Amino acid sequence: MRILTGLQPSGKLHVGNYFGAMQPAVQLQDKGEAFYFIADYHAMTSSQDPAALRENVRELAIDFLACGLDPERAVFFRQSAVPEVNELAWILSTVCPFSLLEKGHSYKDKVANGIAPNHALFAYPVLMAADILLYDSNQVPVGKDQKQHLEMTRDLAGKLNETYGEGTVVVPEPIIREDTAVVVGTDGRKMSKSYHNTLPIFGEEKPSKKIIMKDLVTDSTPLEEPKPVEDSTILALYKLFASEADYNQMVADHLSGGFGYGHFKTRLADAYWDFFAPMRARREEIIADPGYVDAVLKRGAERAREESAKVLARVRKAVGLV
Amino acid sequence: MRILTGLQPSGKLHVGNYFGAMQPAVQLQDKGEAFYFIADYHAMTSSQDPAALRENVRELAIDFLACGLDPERAVFFRQSAVPEVNELAWILSTVCPFSLLEKGHSYKDKVANGIAPNHALFAYPVLMAADILLYDSNQVPVGKDQKQHLEMTRDLAGKLNETYGEGTVVVPEPIIREDTAVVVGTDGRKMSKSYHNTLPIFGEEKPSKKIIMKDLVTDSTPLEEPKPVEDSTILALYKLFASEADYNQMVADHLSGGFGYGHFKTRLADAYWDFFAPMRARREEIIADPGYVDAVLKRGAERAREESAKVLARVRKAVGLV
Repeated sequence: MRILTGLQPSGKLHVGNYFGAMQPAVQLQDKGEAFYFIADYHAMTSSQDPAALRENVRELAIDFLACGLDPERAVFFRQSAVPEVNELAWILSTVCPFSLLEKGHSYKDKVANGIAPNHALFAYPVLMAADILLYDSNQVPVGKDQKQHLEMTRDLAGKLNETYGEGTVVVPEPIIREDTAVVVGTDGRKMSKSYHNTLPIFGEEKPSKKIIMKDLVTDSTPLEEPKPVEDSTILALYKLFASEADYNQMVADHLSGGFGYGHFKTRLADAYWDFFAPMRARREEIIADPGYVDAVLKRGAERAREESAKVLARVRKAVGLV
Repeated sequence: MRILTGLQPSGKLHVGNYFGAMQPAVQLQDKGEAFYFIADYHAMTSSQDPAALRENVRELAIDFLACGLDPERAVFFRQSAVPEVNELAWILSTVCPFSLLEKGHSYKDKVANGIAPNHALFAYPVLMAADILLYDSNQVPVGKDQKQHLEMTRDLAGKLNETYGEGTVVVPEPIIREDTAVVVGTDGRKMSKSYHNTLPIFGEEKPSKKIIMKDLVTDSTPLEEPKPVEDSTILALYKLFASEADYNQMVADHLSGGFGYGHFKTRLADAYWDFFAPMRARREEIIADPGYVDAVLKRGAERAREESAKVLARVRKAVGLV
């Protein structure tokens, strides 16, 4: 079974990214043959900054490896290292009704959010379909926001098979992710770069902890009184990082009163910092070996191309290009 | 100076195709470094028949070579032999305003003509721009109907250079073709497959000549009377094939009277048949050498890829993919 996941290189990773995307992706390595790619072509739909793109791709690769991606088991590559995906996208375009793309949420949303619509943004679901179909992916983990795009992929795969014969491409199945508990940000809303309420995974110690100590929102319950445990941002975050025992202790300390928020924040900051300690250490090792990331991505691209070559040869033959 | 021309593989060539597209293209070989490609990706926008695509591509290659394309001078290749063009198309999509494509005549016309709109049909001008820019083409011969698409190519090239720096791609210039006199069909309208009024270039002798003898429309002027020379379909076609002296003689014979249309048709049929005799002979030679066409296209693809690799390396670097 082949499982495919793409991640957009969009800047410094935060705790929300880690629990929402990296951790589940890393866990999938045990469930099948995992293909991970850094979606640099997709990143170009919303940003045209070459230096930032280079930097973000490199950072994402380093961070992903530090977070536990195992390049011996998974195939890890840069999307643009397999440019053949664009040929498959063209082929899919020829069986893609225009109306299918007009229905795309992502396009509509971005336009509604004032992002000047370019053609790539509109065509994004076709390239995404090609990403998936190029590797005969059987399963694609998707969150709610990507469900529609996977449906489009299945539609396009069906249309290609209908037009050119069954088996031209593999129709993938979604793995609908159990709604990973939304990670709250420092202001209690969903953690998101656009809300400026994020905690970095790989920041410097002092400024990172300072975000918790200073920015994290609490109520004004006096020190000696019991603190509310429902909707507590501190507890919600602490649960992600602490052992069950430590978490239960903090709940008890909330209920008993006699502990101030500063105290809880310190515990949270330490737990947060310790949680990422092994990944931070791994990250330092990776950075210390300047050729390592390039070598991993090169080898991943080779393995990805071995697969894509087979699929593309089959598709090219089916459609009459050879 | 590099001149690029693409031809769609859309079935048996007729006299209108020859004078409208092949002959001018062949003449361009003397004016610069000519790149010709068989636009098989584009053909897929309107037909999804693998066997027909294979057949049409092969026929077009044979016919083009028979009509005088010199593979020693020109670079002759199949579009899909350089799949890299699709990557450049994606990159151009990221700087292509959606609204630019909405204005495309060709898309609008096809939709108006009842062709179910697929995404490829909409995206066609972006792929066409990539076709042109991938080879640093300086000049592109265009008829009236392609003028808008070349303007789009220039727009996209300009936008890419604006976003990523001057010199990222070469902005091509159009060679607006002097309006090649419209070739009339057997019914006096423009020769066009959709009117069923065509004369084949490489048909069998008897049925081809029979089209002229039976189908070609004339008026009912009696044999002995002078015949009108204005708007004469016979004369318009004869002019394409006959020497100036022979043409003038036929005009004189129209004006003098005493010659029937059957007589003129025989002259026309013979001139038409003789005109293509050397190309027919060359065609037989080509067909007799089964590996020749493949070898030509293979060599052409290699030469095209040498060029495309340079351009794409430059573009990929500019946009931050390397």
